[in-house]
Amino acid sequence: MEEKVLGLLEARRFSEAAALLKDMNPADAAQVLELLPEPKMPVAFRLLPKELAADTFAYMSPESQEILVQGFSDRELEEVMEQLFLDDTVDMLEEMPANVIKRVLRHVDAGTRKMINQVLNYPKDSAGSIMTMEYVDLKRSMTVEQAFERIRRTGVEKETVYTCYVTDSRRKLEGIVTVKDMLLAPKDRAIRDIMETNIKFVSTHTDQEEAARALSKYDFLALPVVDGEERLVGIVTVDDAIDVIQEEATEDMEKMAAMAPSDKPYMKTSVWDTWKKRVPWLLFLMISATFTSGIINSFEDALAASVVLTGFIPMLMDTGGNSGSQSSITIIRGLSLGEIRYGDVPRILLKESSVALLCGSTLAAANFVKLMLVDRVPLLVAGVVCATLAVVVLVANIVGSTLPILAKRLGFDPTVMASPLITTIVDAVSLVIYFNVAKLMLGI
Amino acid sequence: MEEKVLGLLEARRFSEAAALLKDMNPADAAQVLELLPEPKMPVAFRLLPKELAADTFAYMSPESQEILVQGFSDRELEEVMEQLFLDDTVDMLEEMPANVIKRVLRHVDAGTRKMINQVLNYPKDSAGSIMTMEYVDLKRSMTVEQAFERIRRTGVEKETVYTCYVTDSRRKLEGIVTVKDMLLAPKDRAIRDIMETNIKFVSTHTDQEEAARALSKYDFLALPVVDGEERLVGIVTVDDAIDVIQEEATEDMEKMAAMAPSDKPYMKTSVWDTWKKRVPWLLFLMISATFTSGIINSFEDALAASVVLTGFIPMLMDTGGNSGSQSSITIIRGLSLGEIRYGDVPRILLKESSVALLCGSTLAAANFVKLMLVDRVPLLVAGVVCATLAVVVLVANIVGSTLPILAKRLGFDPTVMASPLITTIVDAVSLVIYFNVAKLMLGI
Repeated sequence: MEEKVLGLLEARRFSEAAALLKDMNPADAAQVLELLPEPKMPVAFRLLPKELAADTFAYMSPESQEILVQGFSDRELEEVMEQLFLDDTVDMLEEMPANVIKRVLRHVDAGTRKMINQVLNYPKDSAGSIMTMEYVDLKRSMTVEQAFERIRRTGVEKETVYTCYVTDSRRKLEGIVTVKDMLLAPKDRAIRDIMETNIKFVSTHTDQEEAARALSKYDFLALPVVDGEERLVGIVTVDDAIDVIQEEATEDMEKMAAMAPSDKPYMKTSVWDTWKKRVPWLLFLMISATFTSGIINSFEDALAASVVLTGFIPMLMDTGGNSGSQSSITIIRGLSLGEIRYGDVPRILLKESSVALLCGSTLAAANFVKLMLVDRVPLLVAGVVCATLAVVVLVANIVGSTLPILAKRLGFDPTVMASPLITTIVDAVSLVIYFNVAKLMLGI
Repeated sequence: MEEKVLGLLEARRFSEAAALLKDMNPADAAQVLELLPEPKMPVAFRLLPKELAADTFAYMSPESQEILVQGFSDRELEEVMEQLFLDDTVDMLEEMPANVIKRVLRHVDAGTRKMINQVLNYPKDSAGSIMTMEYVDLKRSMTVEQAFERIRRTGVEKETVYTCYVTDSRRKLEGIVTVKDMLLAPKDRAIRDIMETNIKFVSTHTDQEEAARALSKYDFLALPVVDGEERLVGIVTVDDAIDVIQEEATEDMEKMAAMAPSDKPYMKTSVWDTWKKRVPWLLFLMISATFTSGIINSFEDALAASVVLTGFIPMLMDTGGNSGSQSSITIIRGLSLGEIRYGDVPRILLKESSVALLCGSTLAAANFVKLMLVDRVPLLVAGVVCATLAVVVLVANIVGSTLPILAKRLGFDPTVMASPLITTIVDAVSLVIYFNVAKLMLGI
């Protein structure tokens, strides 16, 4: 289906394309449009019926939105902005150059403009920046029937009507009532009698990840956001929470691979931007790796005395690095899902040490057999290599599991401590252990 | 709050604890109970009011649920099972030993038993295994008022009432209608006139990750699941989709760190299980690293002739490994979010090569300055190291970006190809390049 429309558009068979486009889901239509070459995108966008156009616009990437906005007439801009939900408008504006923001703000009504400006002022990764102000608010004295009346009157423009918020005259949040509760209650029941007063909420400055996690923990469809005086200012909806969860997982993976996180999809990031995200860590890690070289050089005599030792350096370093990342990534993910707390440190240390002893002895045993039967090295050399291997795995697991927790405790991002940095530390420690064990056992 | 209840429970001040527990959110109550020592958990569970008890049970881990079920009287078991949503029951049973499953199935009514057995039969990671059969179904001829009547009559037991499914007499899905649409429509409007007929659905055997991704793409609260004959059999709700998204991200991170994925939280996994998940990959990677040793040994003469070269091996290997994981993890995440497709390979190769040239020359330049000014090595040696560095980064990026795509194309899991395996390949290639460049330039 998507491919067919794309083909028709590229062949400039617009009326046939329009006939297919009009029945498409906006998410799919957005995908088709994004695949078109830039100059054709505005043409195709104009084929969409008015309402679908706004919905489709909301699903497009900020880069494509900018292309479209630049090409819109004032009239078109107004139409799209009118249909867009507030949080989608803000998402779009956050990525736009100042002149586009100004133009958009000129074409929305004064109330919307005020709300947009307010949301744009919250810190980038805060709950305030992803919330929408378009929620249904009720009063405690309303009956269920009056509440439904209010939803009917105002609901079209609200992003979700299923969770409604009961506020007092000062906008303080008093309770929450769901449409399900209202449907299952008699029509003349007062909202105050069916509302839930044990309310979970976050503040505008709460980290967006924490807000998303709360929403997922309590299985909510929306989570209220309050200001410093506990007045309701907006809600975070579940679709935005899912986006945050996916973005944060991507960011964590990027940091684990020693990259500065980006918020653009890979295919839309320029070579230059990719370079800027990757090179600082590569440089930093390259420089730290030279310490390792320093260690090797300082044991030059030992190596010259027993050249066969050099060959095992990569295996020892790699195994240490692999064990270290296994531990660190397990702990980092546990911290980020809230499964691990500071009080667990003693149990974690005990567990990681036990696992390291098991893994280390398995690896040492396998390696010993290979060294004796395949490589046929002297018994003492095999002993040095296997003893080092077991110690290296132990050190790697301890460093790998404690460093992220320590980082978090000190207020740093534990993910940045992941594989590459831990690898560098473990590499250096492995080599020092290796050469000292060698000196001791081989007497060189 | 949670800490206070925990303290009261541990001090056996049960009536005070009960007074606090009864107003808690079930997700929070579950967290408190999970922190108690095993023997105290059933006692604390009995303090919960009946309805909260079932909700709390649904939020607990399978391990804790098993402890509780083992201690339940038949009466208690029946009460909890009656309140539980079908998908939560199935989630629980999937992790239980056969005797517990049998006992639970004896205490649910015949209809539920049939549904449970059906869901239990779907493959573990399929949409069928996470769906619920408790949805609201409507007929096209109903009016909005009749539909609301039906929701009022049957809604209590449904996990979501906000999206309703219109089926024909053979249970074929004809349309979808939301409560919002119904609230905004006149009461005497027929469902057929307001239902959406352009329906997105998945099949029972669709991968659960794909179902979750579809739900997130279209911003749905629930996604219908159909059988081979396109008959509606259940729905996947957004809260379960979020769980799947988080689980899959955790699994991907574990695989990136060369571990077999687990579905238990870290603190609940035994040392033995952790060892089993980690040691196979460590062994495999250790053995592949011995190829690296083989390469070093075969260049033993070159190394003996210029011992200073040995010191740069770790830096070259680490940098290659780091560059390779940067590329591979970017591509793997792009594949898993559906941002990258096979057709993009030429553009990816071009981009990764350009980034590699930029990164490689930056690193080589920085390293050259350091080699000449700090380490004061001969110009030719510095030349060998820096030229190798640039080539290694290029090879690493090409291997790192193409291997995951190739793996996916061949039907393997691209994530397994991530950092560790790529590191091993890049290590070996780096060394061969290094020694050959050295032989060529130094004439050894």
